[in-house]
Amino acid sequence: MSIPVFYEPNPIASPFLSEDESIHAHRVLRLKAGDPIFILNGKGQKFEAKIDQSTSKKTSFYQLKEIENADKPTYAIHLWIAPTKQMERMEWMVEKCAEFGIQSIGFFHSRYSERKEIKTHRLEKIVISALKQSKNLFLPIINPIVSFKELVHQMENKPVEQKLFAYISEPPSPSLSKSIQLNRAYHILIGPEGDFSQEESEALLASDWTPFSLGRAILRTETAGLAATHAIHLLHEN
Amino acid sequence: MSIPVFYEPNPIASPFLSEDESIHAHRVLRLKAGDPIFILNGKGQKFEAKIDQSTSKKTSFYQLKEIENADKPTYAIHLWIAPTKQMERMEWMVEKCAEFGIQSIGFFHSRYSERKEIKTHRLEKIVISALKQSKNLFLPIINPIVSFKELVHQMENKPVEQKLFAYISEPPSPSLSKSIQLNRAYHILIGPEGDFSQEESEALLASDWTPFSLGRAILRTETAGLAATHAIHLLHEN
Repeated sequence: MSIPVFYEPNPIASPFLSEDESIHAHRVLRLKAGDPIFILNGKGQKFEAKIDQSTSKKTSFYQLKEIENADKPTYAIHLWIAPTKQMERMEWMVEKCAEFGIQSIGFFHSRYSERKEIKTHRLEKIVISALKQSKNLFLPIINPIVSFKELVHQMENKPVEQKLFAYISEPPSPSLSKSIQLNRAYHILIGPEGDFSQEESEALLASDWTPFSLGRAILRTETAGLAATHAIHLLHEN
Repeated sequence: MSIPVFYEPNPIASPFLSEDESIHAHRVLRLKAGDPIFILNGKGQKFEAKIDQSTSKKTSFYQLKEIENADKPTYAIHLWIAPTKQMERMEWMVEKCAEFGIQSIGFFHSRYSERKEIKTHRLEKIVISALKQSKNLFLPIINPIVSFKELVHQMENKPVEQKLFAYISEPPSPSLSKSIQLNRAYHILIGPEGDFSQEESEALLASDWTPFSLGRAILRTETAGLAATHAIHLLHEN
């Protein structure tokens, strides 16, 4: 059997698994004292340890030893997306972006949004599960929903980063491969199915957001989010 | 209101929408005689027409006129995948691959497969719906499940096409960008979560399949299928 992997943000400070992880260790995997485990802190480190006491409330471990410490990636992807009506579509996208690797996923609502609020609790569980499955070492951050205006305003104070928004226009905007400079922090904005309003698109252009195209096909919101994330990874491939 | 789009493989031979499409036209959209519609034949042509009689069994149209006739793409992606246990994951992947555009999606079962059979009826509905939504003009073909052996055998008689399989190895295989020649027909094989057996990998190598890597992260089967499809499109981007 392969050694099970757990997520615990501060294993050095506190040698216990969270309640969720303890339930998994105790009830699902039925781990016992002395069983080996791996622990990810979601900040680049991987540890090995041994189960001390396992209960479904609180599982403790000992002999913690760092076995991997990854450098921060040379680029960072921050996705900002207008959530779809069907929550399932966002859950899928979050899972896939976390598999590919992503710094953060945040949400905004704009004029033609299909959904003005979103609960992030399940999404946080999804990124933890994808972290463990994908062997990535950095846990994506899930940011709560903000209004389009707030988001554009927040970003005005981040001049060194690349700000890009998916834009359907005729003629089409340049593709991501033509728009990004390598090894930066990218903030990628994906609008709702009903698109940005004229006013919103103009506000983005005025605020130094660069429009980009994702190709000829019209992609659904969640597909656009993962296509942009995947394209940026491919552009950094050696 | 935007003009609704329907799929009908032979609108010239038979001026009727299928029962599924008729239900949509009649009950959901409540179209009436004289209303304009678009029709895709899934083979590169787009037509405009007008509703003649609309019933939920059989909707007829008239004044059919071709308005677009796309050339076949210069490259073709044929994905062969070992279906996942959860059917939902395959449905989602098929939808996304159809949005990006794909020639065909077929299934196979191999030694460590999680699923030995798969019903394709729902998948055929999904590709039709993605065709209409994405504005692609070619309907992906869904191929029924075959055994790994049959598939490898079938492909032995197709020497001019590029045959590639996703392979997790140390050191990693070259990426798709290094493995494909542009403007070909690609047959891409994605194994089950339990991977190909040693014997199967050897059979693929012996039968001139090229191994490729999808990057450092370990992707789920369905994510690997869509990542490969998307990567090939990006490599053909102008």
